[in-house]
Amino acid sequence: MDIIVLKPGASASDLRQIIKKLEHRGFRANISKGTERTVVGVIGDTTKITEDESNAFASMSGVEKIHRITQPFKLASRDFRSNDTSIRIGKHTIGGRKIQVMAGPCAVEDLPTLLHIAKEVKKAGAAFVRGGAFKPRTSPYSFQGLGEEGLKILAEVRRQTGMPVVTELMDPRDIDVILKYADVIQIGARNMQNFRLLQEVGSHDKPVLLKRGLSATIKELLMAAEYIMSQGNNKVILCERGIRTFETATRNTLDLNAIPVLKKLTHLPVLVDPSHGVGRWDLVAPMARAAVAAGADALMIEVHSKPEEAESDGEQSLKPGKFSALMKELRAVAKAVGRTI
Amino acid sequence: MDIIVLKPGASASDLRQIIKKLEHRGFRANISKGTERTVVGVIGDTTKITEDESNAFASMSGVEKIHRITQPFKLASRDFRSNDTSIRIGKHTIGGRKIQVMAGPCAVEDLPTLLHIAKEVKKAGAAFVRGGAFKPRTSPYSFQGLGEEGLKILAEVRRQTGMPVVTELMDPRDIDVILKYADVIQIGARNMQNFRLLQEVGSHDKPVLLKRGLSATIKELLMAAEYIMSQGNNKVILCERGIRTFETATRNTLDLNAIPVLKKLTHLPVLVDPSHGVGRWDLVAPMARAAVAAGADALMIEVHSKPEEAESDGEQSLKPGKFSALMKELRAVAKAVGRTI
Amino acid sequence: MDIIVLKPGASASDLRQIIKKLEHRGFRANISKGTERTVVGVIGDTTKITEDESNAFASMSGVEKIHRITQPFKLASRDFRSNDTSIRIGKHTIGGRKIQVMAGPCAVEDLPTLLHIAKEVKKAGAAFVRGGAFKPRTSPYSFQGLGEEGLKILAEVRRQTGMPVVTELMDPRDIDVILKYADVIQIGARNMQNFRLLQEVGSHDKPVLLKRGLSATIKELLMAAEYIMSQGNNKVILCERGIRTFETATRNTLDLNAIPVLKKLTHLPVLVDPSHGVGRWDLVAPMARAAVAAGADALMIEVHSKPEEAESDGEQSLKPGKFSALMKELRAVAKAVGRTI
Amino acid sequence: MDIIVLKPGASASDLRQIIKKLEHRGFRANISKGTERTVVGVIGDTTKITEDESNAFASMSGVEKIHRITQPFKLASRDFRSNDTSIRIGKHTIGGRKIQVMAGPCAVEDLPTLLHIAKEVKKAGAAFVRGGAFKPRTSPYSFQGLGEEGLKILAEVRRQTGMPVVTELMDPRDIDVILKYADVIQIGARNMQNFRLLQEVGSHDKPVLLKRGLSATIKELLMAAEYIMSQGNNKVILCERGIRTFETATRNTLDLNAIPVLKKLTHLPVLVDPSHGVGRWDLVAPMARAAVAAGADALMIEVHSKPEEAESDGEQSLKPGKFSALMKELRAVAKAVGRTI
Repeated sequence: MDIIVLKPGASASDLRQIIKKLEHRGFRANISKGTERTVVGVIGDTTKITEDESNAFASMSGVEKIHRITQPFKLASRDFRSNDTSIRIGKHTIGGRKIQVMAGPCAVEDLPTLLHIAKEVKKAGAAFVRGGAFKPRTSPYSFQGLGEEGLKILAEVRRQTGMPVVTELMDPRDIDVILKYADVIQIGARNMQNFRLLQEVGSHDKPVLLKRGLSATIKELLMAAEYIMSQGNNKVILCERGIRTFETATRNTLDLNAIPVLKKLTHLPVLVDPSHGVGRWDLVAPMARAAVAAGADALMIEVHSKPEEAESDGEQSLKPGKFSALMKELRAVAKAVGRTI
Repeated sequence: MDIIVLKPGASASDLRQIIKKLEHRGFRANISKGTERTVVGVIGDTTKITEDESNAFASMSGVEKIHRITQPFKLASRDFRSNDTSIRIGKHTIGGRKIQVMAGPCAVEDLPTLLHIAKEVKKAGAAFVRGGAFKPRTSPYSFQGLGEEGLKILAEVRRQTGMPVVTELMDPRDIDVILKYADVIQIGARNMQNFRLLQEVGSHDKPVLLKRGLSATIKELLMAAEYIMSQGNNKVILCERGIRTFETATRNTLDLNAIPVLKKLTHLPVLVDPSHGVGRWDLVAPMARAAVAAGADALMIEVHSKPEEAESDGEQSLKPGKFSALMKELRAVAKAVGRTI
Repeated sequence: MDIIVLKPGASASDLRQIIKKLEHRGFRANISKGTERTVVGVIGDTTKITEDESNAFASMSGVEKIHRITQPFKLASRDFRSNDTSIRIGKHTIGGRKIQVMAGPCAVEDLPTLLHIAKEVKKAGAAFVRGGAFKPRTSPYSFQGLGEEGLKILAEVRRQTGMPVVTELMDPRDIDVILKYADVIQIGARNMQNFRLLQEVGSHDKPVLLKRGLSATIKELLMAAEYIMSQGNNKVILCERGIRTFETATRNTLDLNAIPVLKKLTHLPVLVDPSHGVGRWDLVAPMARAAVAAGADALMIEVHSKPEEAESDGEQSLKPGKFSALMKELRAVAKAVGRTI
Repeated sequence: MDIIVLKPGASASDLRQIIKKLEHRGFRANISKGTERTVVGVIGDTTKITEDESNAFASMSGVEKIHRITQPFKLASRDFRSNDTSIRIGKHTIGGRKIQVMAGPCAVEDLPTLLHIAKEVKKAGAAFVRGGAFKPRTSPYSFQGLGEEGLKILAEVRRQTGMPVVTELMDPRDIDVILKYADVIQIGARNMQNFRLLQEVGSHDKPVLLKRGLSATIKELLMAAEYIMSQGNNKVILCERGIRTFETATRNTLDLNAIPVLKKLTHLPVLVDPSHGVGRWDLVAPMARAAVAAGADALMIEVHSKPEEAESDGEQSLKPGKFSALMKELRAVAKAVGRTI
C-alpha cells in the first residue's frame, strides 16, 4: 500500500477514517496536503499489508488510488537474499558461472528414440534430458503423453546416461509418481497460476522449473515462485518461454528483457526456453545465443531425431546435428560474456 | 490441416512424400501449381486430423505453412449443433430469451453477510448467488477462502433463499466436496487451460461456468469447452471476463466483441462478468448494459454490502442499492433488444 | 511527478540534492521516512512539472521511481471543465442527449455512388456523411484515394443532401484544401501521434474527429487531444475504433470500456466506430448497440451499396438496408438509456 | 489472396461468380471440393492482387475467408533480392560483417554538450552520432527540440569529428532542411505508418532509418519499408526499438525475435535500439549484447554526459564511461559470432 492518494473532493471525515484504520492496524500516517489533493504516506512495516487489506483501503470513501512501493514478493526478492541462489542437482549446479543446458524431445515417445536423443545431446554438451510424460495439449484429441510409462522410460535413460531428468507435473494427484522418477519438476506456462499445484510442489524438496505464463508479467512470475517458496521449497528455477503479443510471425515473443530484469529483482536462477519462445526451429539458434549474451543461467532446447514424425511440437525441434553445431556457437558466446557452457 | 503450402524451392520428391503420407492416412491430395509455389489441398474428413498430425506435416521437408480450414473444436461448434443450448438449473434456464443474473460477493466470508447480500440481490432480480469458498489469489499471503466451511454457508443460503449457488473449483482433489454443495461449478480464468481440471468437471453432470483466460483467444476458450464436452458433459456456460491488454486505466479490457463472435461459432450460452472485466465498481453499470445490448445470455456481478471491509476484490463490488438500480436499467435495455431479465 | 520514492540505499546527500532541486523549482518537500525507504512528497502546483522535468528527477542519484498523481493533460480533463463539451456542426450538435450517426463508405469513389449512399443513410437517420479522399493504406500498391476530386464530390453531396461531411487529413500540406471542403476533419488512428498534424488542426477552428491509435492507451488519446487543444481548438471529438490485441477472430478489439473511462476523465464527446473496431460487417450491429448502451455520444458506421465492389474495406461495410434496420434497433436502445438517436 | 475458402452453405452460383471474377482478372481457378466445404486455389501471378482486390473477393457471397500465400511486400523481400543490402554512408557501411554503432543523446541541446558526447563515443568506437532536433513528444508542454538550430549543431559536430549524423524527420514540410544537414534520416516509431512522410523520404536518395511502430507487426514494418522503396529509395535500415506489451517492468519489450525473422524475410539491414527498447539505462548493456548475438547489423545507443540534466529521456541514457565499457563487451560478443564492431 504505502501511499494513499485522496480524491480532490475527499472530506476531512474521509481522511480521519483512513488515519484511524491505519493506526488501528499499527501504522502511522504522514499527511501531505498539496494544492489539489492530499496524499497519505503509510509509515511502518508495510510489507505486512496484504493485497486484500490494500484493496480494502482502496474501497474507502475519498480514496482515489493506492501506490504500493514495497514489492509483494519477499522470499523470492533480491532484498531478502542478495546472493545468487545455486541449485545442486546430481553433480550439476544451476545458477553459477557454468550455463546448464537441458535438451530432449517435447514428449517421451519410446525408449529407443529417447535414449538415442539423450546420448546425442549429452555428447554435444547437454547435462539434463527433458521429455514430457504428462502433456498439456490445447486439444483433447491430441496425444496426452504416455503417463507413468513415460516416466519409467525417463528413469531408464537416466540410468544409462547419468543425465538428470526434467519432466512436467500437471495434476497434484500425480505428485507421488513424479517425485519417484523426476530430478526436476516442471510447472508449465498454463499452470503458472495453478496455485494448488504450486503449493503442492512447494511442500517437497525437489527442484522446480517454473515456466512464465503466456501473458504473465515478471512480477506475477515472481509471485508464483513465492507461492512455492512460502511452502518451504527454495529450489525454484525461473523460465522465460515467450509471451503472447500481436505478432504472428513467431508462435510467441521470447522476452529476453526478462533476463536482466529478473537478475535485478530476484536471486533465483533464470532459464530460457527458445524452442517454445519462438516455435520455429530455424530461429532457435540466434535466440539461444542472445539468451546467453543477455545473462541466462540455463537453456532448455527441444531436440528430436525425426521432427517430422514427432508426436508433439516437431516444428520447433532441432535435429541432433544442428543442436551440436549450436552448442559450439553457444560456447563462444558464453566465453565472450565470462561464462562457460 | 486442409491446405499445405510448399516452399518456393520444394522438390518433386518433397511433394511425393507429402502425397504418400496423405494417402496413407486415407486422404486425397489436390495439387495446385502456381507460378511461384505449389499448394496441396487435402480432401477427405480433415476434422479427424489432430493438432499433432498437422504439426508433423508442417515439419516435413519442403513445407512452408499449413492453413487449417476446419475448426479444431467439434462438439462446441455451431456446425455440430445449430440450435442454441439451454441449460436448466433448478427452475431457471441459462441460454434462452430471459437473461439470467448471478450476483454476490467475491468470497464467502460468513453466513449473516452472505445471507443478507443474497436476499438483497434476489429482491432486485438475481436468480443465482455466487461466492468463492476456494479462492485463487495471486499472493500466497492473501485470504485463500473458507474452504468447505464456505461451501456449507452457500448451501445454507440456498436453503433459505431458494437460489442456486455458483462457486469455484480450483483443484481436482476437491471435486467431491464441490459436487456435494454447488449447483454450478466455476472454472476460473487462471485455470482455463488446467486440462486435468477440465477433464474432471467434464466427467460429471453438473453445469460448468468456464471463464476465459486472461490472454486466451476465443478459439482457445472453445477448445477448453471442448475438453469438458469431450468427457460427456455438455452443460458448459462460457464466460467473458476481460482480457489483458496494455491499457492501464482498467484492470482488464472487457472484450464484448467476444459475445457476437461466440454466438456465431458456438451453440453454448455466453455469460459476461463486468466486475472482473473492468475491476472498478463505477464502470460496472455501463459495461453490464453494453453486454446485454451485445447479446449476452447471462451476467455475473459482484455485490457486497460493505465493499471497504470485503476480504477480496472490494474495489469492484457494487452495494445492493446500486445493484438494484442497475437491474432496472438492464431491464430497459433487455426489452429494447427483445429479451427479458 | 508528485511522489519521489528513494532506493533503500539512498544517501542523506542524495536526499539533500533532491530537496534542493525541488526548492529551486519553487516546490516544498514533505519527507516521509519508512522502515525500508524514504518517500518525498512534492508540494505545490505539480501540474507545472513537465514530463522532461519529471524524467530528470527520475535520473537523479538515489531515486527509484516517480509516481505522478496529477494527470498530464489539462485542457482535456474533467477537472479543468466539469460540464460536457457540445460541438455545434451546422444544425447538429455532438455531445448532447441526442446520439449522432455518421455513415458512408470508407473511400469516396464517384459522385453517383456516394450520393446514393448518402441519401439512403440520411433517410435511415444519419446526420453526417463520411468518406475518405486521402486514404492511409498499409500497402503503397493499394488505392490511395481520389484526393481533391474526392473532396469536391463530398462537397457536392453536402450541397444536395444538406449533410455535413467528415473526411480524413493525412498530411499538413493538405490543410488548406481540407479546410475548404470538410465540416469535420478526421485524424486517423495511425496519425494519432503525428504531433505536427495535431498542431496543424489545432491552429484552426474546424471540429476534429481524433481516432485512438491501434495500441494507444486512453491517457495517450487524451494527450493527443491536448496537443490539438493547446493550439486553441477545443472542438475535439474522441473516437474509439478498436485496439490491437492477440485475438485473431476480429480485425481489432473494440474497447467499449473506453467510453465510461473517458466520460470520467474528460468533458469531450466520445464517438465509437464499430466498423473498423471489429472489421466484419456481421458484428457491427451488436457492437453498435453495445456502444449506445455504454454511453457513446456518436457512432460512425461504414455503409456501401455494393461492398463486394468497394475500393476499400468492403468486408466491414453494411448495405443500406441493414444500416436502416440497425438504426431502428439503436433507437430502441438509446431510448432505454434515456437518449435519442 | 491465393486461396478462397467457401462457407459450408455456399451455392453453385456463388462459386460461378467467383470463378468468373477470377478469370476476368486473368487468373485460373483450381476447385477442390472437400466433404465439408469447397476451396478455390487461385492460379497465376497473385502478387499482382492488391489488398483492395483481395478484400473485394472476401466480401463476395459464399466466401468465408481468404488465405494469402504471397507476401504483400515485394521490393523489400528476400525473394526479390537474395543478397544482403549494404548501405554506404561516408566511409562506413551498414549491412556487412562489421556491426555499426550510432550513439548520442536523445535530443540535441547545445554544441559543447553534443561535441563532448560525440568525441567520447567516437573514442569508444561509435561511427555515427545521433541526436534529435525535431522531437516527437507525447506532451505538447514538453521540450520539442531546437529545430534547424539543432541541425546546425549536428553539422558542426560532423565537421569537427567526421562522424555522419542521424536525426529525425517528423513533418514532410521539413524535408529540405533535413536533407541539407542529415546523413541518415530517422523515421520515428510513431510515424512508421505516416504514409505521406514515407513517400517523401522515398523520393530522395538519402538513407532512411525506419523505426518499428509500438504495436507494428514485422510484416507491417516491411510494408512501411516497401512504401519508401516503391518511390525509388532502396537505402532503408530497419530498426527494432521495442514493442508495447502488458509488461510494466520495462518501458517497452525489446523484441529480439525480430532480428532473425527479418533476416529471413528481407535483404535490408537490421539495427537495434536497446535504449528505447527497455527505457532503463541499467538494462541497455545485456540487451545490446543479446542483439549482437542474435545477428543485428547495427546498434543505436543513447549516451549523455549528464543524464540527470538531459532535456529528454535521461532515464535510459548511458554515461560515456559505461558506454565505453559496453563497447568492449560488444566487441567480444561480435567476435564470438564471427563479426567485428
